[in-house]
Formats: sequence, C-alpha cells, structure tokens
Amino acid sequence: HAQSVRIHGTADVYVGSMKYAGNERQSRVGSGGMTTSYIGFSGSEDLGNGLKAGFAFGQFFRMDSGAQGRFNGDTTYARDANVSLSGGFGSIKLGRSSAPNFVPSLSANPFGASFGFSPLIVHMNTTTLNSGAFGYQRTTAADTGWSNQVVYSTPVIAGGLTVNLHYQFSNLADAGNSEDEKKNIGISGRYVHGPLMVTGFYEEAELTNPNVAGRTSDWLNAKNWMLGGTWDFEVVKAYLSYGAGEDLRIAGDETETWQVGASIPMGPAGKFLASYAETEFDPSNTVSDRTRKTLTVGYDYALSKRTDIYTIVMHDRFTGTDSGTSYALGIRHNF
Amino acid sequence: HAQSVRIHGTADVYVGSMKYAGNERQSRVGSGGMTTSYIGFSGSEDLGNGLKAGFAFGQFFRMDSGAQGRFNGDTTYARDANVSLSGGFGSIKLGRSSAPNFVPSLSANPFGASFGFSPLIVHMNTTTLNSGAFGYQRTTAADTGWSNQVVYSTPVIAGGLTVNLHYQFSNLADAGNSEDEKKNIGISGRYVHGPLMVTGFYEEAELTNPNVAGRTSDWLNAKNWMLGGTWDFEVVKAYLSYGAGEDLRIAGDETETWQVGASIPMGPAGKFLASYAETEFDPSNTVSDRTRKTLTVGYDYALSKRTDIYTIVMHDRFTGTDSGTSYALGIRHNF
Amino acid sequence: HAQSVRIHGTADVYVGSMKYAGNERQSRVGSGGMTTSYIGFSGSEDLGNGLKAGFAFGQFFRMDSGAQGRFNGDTTYARDANVSLSGGFGSIKLGRSSAPNFVPSLSANPFGASFGFSPLIVHMNTTTLNSGAFGYQRTTAADTGWSNQVVYSTPVIAGGLTVNLHYQFSNLADAGNSEDEKKNIGISGRYVHGPLMVTGFYEEAELTNPNVAGRTSDWLNAKNWMLGGTWDFEVVKAYLSYGAGEDLRIAGDETETWQVGASIPMGPAGKFLASYAETEFDPSNTVSDRTRKTLTVGYDYALSKRTDIYTIVMHDRFTGTDSGTSYALGIRHNF
Repeated sequence: HAQSVRIHGTADVYVGSMKYAGNERQSRVGSGGMTTSYIGFSGSEDLGNGLKAGFAFGQFFRMDSGAQGRFNGDTTYARDANVSLSGGFGSIKLGRSSAPNFVPSLSANPFGASFGFSPLIVHMNTTTLNSGAFGYQRTTAADTGWSNQVVYSTPVIAGGLTVNLHYQFSNLADAGNSEDEKKNIGISGRYVHGPLMVTGFYEEAELTNPNVAGRTSDWLNAKNWMLGGTWDFEVVKAYLSYGAGEDLRIAGDETETWQVGASIPMGPAGKFLASYAETEFDPSNTVSDRTRKTLTVGYDYALSKRTDIYTIVMHDRFTGTDSGTSYALGIRHNF
Repeated sequence: HAQSVRIHGTADVYVGSMKYAGNERQSRVGSGGMTTSYIGFSGSEDLGNGLKAGFAFGQFFRMDSGAQGRFNGDTTYARDANVSLSGGFGSIKLGRSSAPNFVPSLSANPFGASFGFSPLIVHMNTTTLNSGAFGYQRTTAADTGWSNQVVYSTPVIAGGLTVNLHYQFSNLADAGNSEDEKKNIGISGRYVHGPLMVTGFYEEAELTNPNVAGRTSDWLNAKNWMLGGTWDFEVVKAYLSYGAGEDLRIAGDETETWQVGASIPMGPAGKFLASYAETEFDPSNTVSDRTRKTLTVGYDYALSKRTDIYTIVMHDRFTGTDSGTSYALGIRHNF
Repeated sequence: HAQSVRIHGTADVYVGSMKYAGNERQSRVGSGGMTTSYIGFSGSEDLGNGLKAGFAFGQFFRMDSGAQGRFNGDTTYARDANVSLSGGFGSIKLGRSSAPNFVPSLSANPFGASFGFSPLIVHMNTTTLNSGAFGYQRTTAADTGWSNQVVYSTPVIAGGLTVNLHYQFSNLADAGNSEDEKKNIGISGRYVHGPLMVTGFYEEAELTNPNVAGRTSDWLNAKNWMLGGTWDFEVVKAYLSYGAGEDLRIAGDETETWQVGASIPMGPAGKFLASYAETEFDPSNTVSDRTRKTLTVGYDYALSKRTDIYTIVMHDRFTGTDSGTSYALGIRHNF
C-alpha cells in the first residue's frame, strides 16, 4: 500500500533585505525565493487499456514561521487537491488545481513561479506593493489556483501542442444574486517545437480563490490573457511575454504587461538570470495612468540536481511613490 | 525508521447538481461523494508476547477547495489521532477515534459513510437540510468521532462478536457547572456469522465534538441507539436498520429512523445500490410531528481494486418544505 | 524520489487527573505526557566535498482532539521548518527551528521536554498555573522555537563542545517603532566528556513566537540564561540546573530557577525518574516575592526500543494559592 504514495516537495528559504516600491525596508528570513515551499502527496495507478487514475494534493507552507499556506487564510491543500483520469483522450481533472494563468506565466519568464522576485509573477499575482494611496492591485485577480474546478487537457496534438480547458463552479446555492451561476472559465496552451516554446492563456473570472467569497454584489468580473514564449539559443535562452487584463467592475480599469528575460548558462552548474516587466495601469477614467517597472537579476548555482543556491537583486518602481531595491541570498532543496 | 509509517487515504471527488429538501439547487464539484476524502498515517509494532502497539492519525480534507477537515473549524486529525495497545485481552485505544455510532451506521447501509448521499448517514449526521423554519437537526448530535476518548474493544468472542466500550472525558476543569464531570459514554458491537452481520450501538452524549464547547449551561444531553444488519443472498445483499434518539434538553424531542437498502452485483465490477431512510421528528410537544424521507439509488463500477466511478440520484423530502433531487457523477481513488 | 523523505514522529498520550497549583482538578485524556506528539518530514542529501543539504519540517499535534499545534493559533510546522547546509565548517540553518533555551533545558532534567510534567520545563515554558491574582508567567517568554531564524552551529570542537549562535529577524517593516530592528539573539552550547554533560544558553528576546506580534509598543524585552549538566554514575544519572531571567518591560521583574533530578535504572527496561524545581519570582518592586515548587516522580518502562509506558505523580505549589497533585498513566510510541 505505502508504495502507492509519492511524497515530494520543495523547501526554499532565503535571507533578504526587501523593499518593494512604496514600502518600508524589511530585513527577513523569507520563504520561497525561487519556488513556493510545499509538501505534496501524489500517485497514479495503471487501470489497463491505456487508462490511468491519479491523485495529487499539495500543501504550501512558509519556512520563516512554519505556517501553512501562502498567506493566512489559505486552504491547507491550496497547491492541488484533485483526482484525474487520463488516457488516449487526454485527461480530466476534478478538484483544486492550477488556474489557466499559472503555467503559462511561470514558463514565460526566467524566474519561474517566484512570487517574491519574478517581475512578471509579482505584477500579475502579488499585492506586495504598498497600494495605500495608489489604487494598485495585482493584474490577475483570480489566484493561480482554482477551487471547484474541472479541467480537460488534450493529449499532445499537432506535433507538440497541449490545450487545457478550465471551468470553476461557484459551489454556492442561489441566495438571490444567481450565485449558483457564477463561474470562472479559461483556456491555456503550450506548444513546443525544437528550441521554441510558445504558451498562452485566456480567462474570465467571477470567483475569488482559494475561497469563493459569497458576496451579494460586487462580484469579481475580470478578463485576462497573456501570450509568451521562449527560444533556446543555447548561449542564452530568451523569454518574452505580453498580456492584458481588465476588471469590468470598474469602468476603464485596464492593465497591460510586457516582460522580457534571459537565462545565460555560466559553466556546467551556474545560470545568470534577468527579467524586466512593465505594467501600465489605467485604474479608472478619473485618475491618471500609472506604470510599474520591475527589474530582477540573479545568479543560480546548482549544488546538485536537487539543491541550488541563488542570489537576487530586484529594483521596483511605481509612479508617484518611492522605488525600492531588494537583495536576497537563498537555498532551494527539492525532495 | 521510514518503513514504520504507512501512508494511506482516499481521494473522492464528484461533479453534482445538489438539492436537499428545502434548499436552493447548487451545481458543484464536491468532495467525498462515497467516502470522506482523507490522508492517514499509521503503523504498528510487534512488542512480543502477543502484544502490539499501534498509532493512527488521519486528516479529512475537501477536494473542492483543498481545505482541511470536513468543515471549517474541524480539527486537523479529526479522523483519528490515537495510540493503541492490543493483545489477547482485546485492545485499549487512547485519543481521538470513532464514536459508538459510526461503524454500526456505515455498515448497516449500502452507501457506507457517504455524508452526501447515504440516506441513513445524512439523517443521522448532517445538517444539509435547510432547517430555517423547521427546527430540523441531525438525529445524532455528538459527531461520528469523539475526542479525549478511551475505547476498550474485546477480541472476537462467541464465534464472531466484537464489543467496544467508549468513554469520552470533557477535558475541562470545573468552572462552576461540574464541567469536569461531563462525559460521553457508549457501547457498540458487531456480530458476523456466515451471510449475516448484525451491528448496533447505544450512546449518551453531553459533549460536542470535535471540540468540546465549554458552555456554562445548555449542555448537550442526547441519547441514541441503533440496531442494524445485513444478509448476503449473493444475488443481493440486503440492509436494514432501526434506531431512535432523544435530546433531553428539550422535552419531548424524539426521533425514530428506519432504513432499508440493497446492493446488487452487476457483473464482475458493477454494483447497483439503493437505500431508503425515513425519520420521524417529534421536535417538542408544542409543534406537530415532521417526517424526512430520503431515497438514493446509485451505480458503482470498479475500474480496479483501488479506483471506482459512481453515479448517484437522491430524492429528499421533508414535511412542509419543497423536496429536492440531486445528481452526482464521481470517482473514488484509494491510496 | 520518495526515498529522499523520512517520515517520523512521536505519538504520546495519557489518561490523567491534573491539578496544577491554583487550578481546579481536571480528569482528561492528554497529549504528550513525556514528549510533545508530532509528525515530521525530513531528509538530507550528500552534495560531495563533505557538504550536505538537509531539510526538516515537523508538525505538533494534540492526540486528545486531533488538533494541530501545541495550542490553538500555533503554526502548522512550529516544531521545525528549515533548510540547512553543513560541512567541515559546521552548519547554517535557515527558517524556524529550536530557540537557544530548548535543547539545554530538556537535556538538563530527567523528564526531558515534557511540557506537562517536567518541573523545569513547566516553570520555564508553560502557563499551566492559574495566574489570575498572582501575576505568574513562564520564566522564558520567547517560546522554545524561534521563527525567521538563522542558526550557525560549530562542528564538534575542543574534544566534545558544540556551540550554536541564534539570530531571529522580526520580518516586520518599520511602522513607526523600528519594528524592522527588533530581534531575538542567543547562544547555546553542549559539552560531553565521558560521564559528564554540561549545557547552557543565553538569550535576549524582543519577539514573541511562533508568530511575531507586531505591537506598536510594549515589546517583549526578556533576558534568560541557564547552566545545567548531568553526570552518569551508572546506578544513577544526576541532573542539575540553575538559571535566571528578567523581563525588562517591568522594573524588578526577575526570576531564578534551580532544578535537581535523578534517573535510576531499574532492570533492563525500567527507569525511576525524579526532578524538583524551585523558582523565585520577584514580579515587581511593589509586590512581595513568590515561590513555585514542583516535584515530579515517575516510572518509565520500555516495551521496545520505540514504545514505552509511564506513570507520573507531580506535586505543584505556589505562594498564596492552593497546591495540586497530578497523576498520569501514558504510552509513548516513536515512529
């Protein structure tokens, strides 16, 4: 029995001096400088006739305090909690799993899913910037994971393409605002051919995550898309992405984000990483536009296949507030 | 060391359109259509002389959002958290473990411990029905697991009988209402002989679970019993149960529940399941009696020994409110 | 992959009749009579050149109710959540791990890290005593584990000495009270030579744990130290410790604690244990001094290398309130 479960995860921790635009400086031990720390339990079973059943559930945690989740109030298995059936038809996954935006955005920038330092991920998914007087919000409001979800993924088609269709139920009964009909929907895809990888997503979100807020009005009403890609020139791997979002609750609230990056191998174990993202905010018709500009450079050194150390410098600017520079030195261990 | 721990669990998730009596319809991805999803860690050690030490702790979780527990506020290891010593004398178990009502009720109906769809379990243990104006409450108020518990189980005696004695401490100091003396007590048993299985329980509960509420008055004061059994005719396995409960806080608050069910093998991997439960509520002397009637039929198909898919239709009625029909299609994977 | 993770832990549960000084008597199933129950996931990887990477995270839980943590509000991985790099230079550990006080105090008394019954640990780390009218508080206020921590440990030097340097960041941004500069610092050590073990710590704490309270004033400002040791005479192992603390928030708030103990082997599997601790409280210049005196005796019998049973009697006195005697019978299983 025991052998049907695989335990795996990432323990990533750093010492840093952090200052996002508009914030006070903060010295800290931080969790997940490169990858959000987690422990996962998963497994799969061969059912015969090319069919497979699989399950995965994964718990994020913070290595500074030992608290579970990415933030207080996160669900225990916010990383994933799903069962899947896969075969020649592709796969169907039921439960909590990645939102359409997640895999495309992490694979279109050289810092991957770094919620602390990847300019693209920071702009899309975090509320790190002190937004007090500035009306800033992350551009992609529906989280990187969706609860109550059904995902259909195609097999690899057209010589390298995979497409995923996402549908999130509200799991709410109607309490007078058609809560039962609220939903998140999206599509994401990835195409790989030789040195080229192209990826993208489109999503429409009415539901917050990981917990769906049962609001009687003021539902989320956001649309987001992104197109990105990488080309591996071997001496350098180039990254590029462009995306846009709007929140239809607020007339004229639109954002545009582009990002460019590079990963340059330095000997057999080292990599120099750089990424720059710029987001234009048009928060409403009555306030003037604002721009967030974030540049991150880093050096990552693999001590083994499972363990690497990294050092990162990030510079973050936002219209009308003071800019900030952050520094970090960390270690990431996969198990 | 590592081999002393067994990791196991169930990942059970469905897509359903749910409507219990009195509720609004709700489309959803749900968790635990047949078995409440959980992950467990357990093990045992041979101590020699026929003695064994064992431990078990198990965490329920919801596969829709990835949240831990059966509900918000449930304890992390609400399924079990105990150490046991067993030998020729039977076994002693200390910690959190099953209440007297749990194993008898799940084994006396064909849908087992399905908190969403088993008519018997739904009546006894859930508050799914919209009880606003109707004073409905689950008939068995003290939870299916008891904290702070000592359980003594006999070995198999009399050619097939096992009896369990349950005692739950309040774990409270006296704060003026003899809180220290509050307790839950119960007995449960099971007799197996050829095609026959008979089971039953009796319990008296003053303590809520999984957390004991330290109330200064209005303690729970409930008595419950059930007798049930199955007969395996091979072409059909028949299920039958009858039980009653009363809540002594409220004069005349009594319930009676009977249930009948069947499980019919359909080829080597399929099973047709049906169960009907009816509960009479006599909520107090001043309001008239009410009846809940729930019928569930389902088909379960084993893809392997560890994985099955199921489809279920449930019809739920309650005096004085509108009835509801629910539909579900799900997959259950044991690991 | 799976073999890179080791799962281990302790399941310790007892039945007891508890009465600390000043408290009402409480009959209970309790968790962690000898060792706080936990489950841990850890592993290490050889990186070559004498370097090793390691990770550890461990979750305390309570076997009475199945709740996580040592208390409500504890973090999920409060036992440890860290990554380490070790080699000829010693080791660096980042994340949540033991405070300076923890290992010295548990190794200088015969009841180890028993938070329920070790007189030394009870005085230093628990708030079991009903402190209503008496101004009692645990002498070591900054918890036995520190979050946001960097620990440097020397290799074994000078024929048996290990020294650990501890630094805890506040992980807070400046909100007007120099919150960013608040910290906990400390040093701990251990020297082993033949039958002798000497251990000690010194710590200065401004931060609460496991969660740093972001208070605008009234920061913790505590200093603590302890020196302890054991001598193994074989027919008896003797334990001795002396330490003191002060809380600089309150003028004159000082404590002194001494403890003496013994562990006497009784045959191949049994041990008689005794420990007495006395703490003088000088809570402020305006109230008179108070003394807490706690004596615990116990008998521990090993059923195997991994499982033992124990029985304990504890007598607890505090100036100006009624004394209490507690009794426990428990089982501890390591996995």
